[in-house]
Amino acid sequence: MASVEIDQLTNALARLPGLGPRSARRAVLHLLKKREGTLVPLLRALETVDAKLATCSICGNVDTSDPCGVCTDVKRDARSLCVVEEVSDLWALDRSRLFPGRFHVLGGRLSALDGVRPEDLGIDTLIGRVAGGEVDEVVLAMNATLEGQTTAHYLSERLESFPVRITQLAHGLPVGGELDYLDEGTLAQALRARRPVA
Amino acid sequence: MASVEIDQLTNALARLPGLGPRSARRAVLHLLKKREGTLVPLLRALETVDAKLATCSICGNVDTSDPCGVCTDVKRDARSLCVVEEVSDLWALDRSRLFPGRFHVLGGRLSALDGVRPEDLGIDTLIGRVAGGEVDEVVLAMNATLEGQTTAHYLSERLESFPVRITQLAHGLPVGGELDYLDEGTLAQALRARRPVA
Ligand SMILES: [Zn+2]
Ligand SMILES: [Zn+2]
Repeated sequence: MASVEIDQLTNALARLPGLGPRSARRAVLHLLKKREGTLVPLLRALETVDAKLATCSICGNVDTSDPCGVCTDVKRDARSLCVVEEVSDLWALDRSRLFPGRFHVLGGRLSALDGVRPEDLGIDTLIGRVAGGEVDEVVLAMNATLEGQTTAHYLSERLESFPVRITQLAHGLPVGGELDYLDEGTLAQALRARRPVA
Repeated sequence: MASVEIDQLTNALARLPGLGPRSARRAVLHLLKKREGTLVPLLRALETVDAKLATCSICGNVDTSDPCGVCTDVKRDARSLCVVEEVSDLWALDRSRLFPGRFHVLGGRLSALDGVRPEDLGIDTLIGRVAGGEVDEVVLAMNATLEGQTTAHYLSERLESFPVRITQLAHGLPVGGELDYLDEGTLAQALRARRPVA
């Protein structure tokens, strides 16, 4: 009996991770009852982000500018590059403030099962950045999964002819663990003990 | 390091019930990465609801039209009126499809503690509807809390001079339980066994 418009709002919210149909209904009620305090700010924030949303042409991050805020941050060490699978990994590492360099987002990991090949990932742009001589160290920060490690190994081979130090996160990471879910302590330890790829 | 605009979106989402700061961040990432599938539909749905949002001048429901969809539904029995504390209670009862009549939302419950007096609730409009002779039965569907029952008792006294049948939900409801959280079976039983107010 809720109107079509309210049902559409409920459905749009229910598609977000962490919100099911029931919690989406409660969220909608909250939005309707606190229009000025919640609905309007959310609407304005979405409008702004939608209007400015961009994928960074340098690193693959999503942000409200291109190049992104990380790539244009002059306080970061541009000569150190951390390669991650997903934007969520970049955000997790960035939030921890443990890595003072820049990033490169692959947009996935090599997977025979899912048919993901090197050309499906942001690898050419990575090679381009390294070949351009702008980088001294590449930190391979793939997930500690089979596919993540396969990807790291592939990248280390593609990069070995360049005069850069190639490291990867220490395997203090729990096996099968995904970067985005780790606590800061584990991330800090793994970064601190990063080691050259053999 | 996320942009101001992205932070604002995260904060707006984190204010919704069921989403904390961490899940709001994940939801934002999801929105940014699936722009067409999630961000745009949510934005459009919010725009539409914001533009049409109204409080029903008859019953106090929030909807995208005034009068609301419940009040204008000709398949409902206009002579039976269910009085609830909050819009969320109306939605819960409406979702269960157990009550075929119309509703009246008080917008709260009498509370000495919170300083809520009769004139702070939609009681005059309720009396007006009953005095207008449009109603045969008033179902008092307050929460089974002390304040809910105080409110029901107050309403039954205000309504006793009118030629209407006044009933309240049977107290199969768990003590302290709030309507909006009850399963349909409990709601059905309480409605079925509703009894005249002494
Ligand atoms: Zn960037
Ligand atoms: Zn109405």
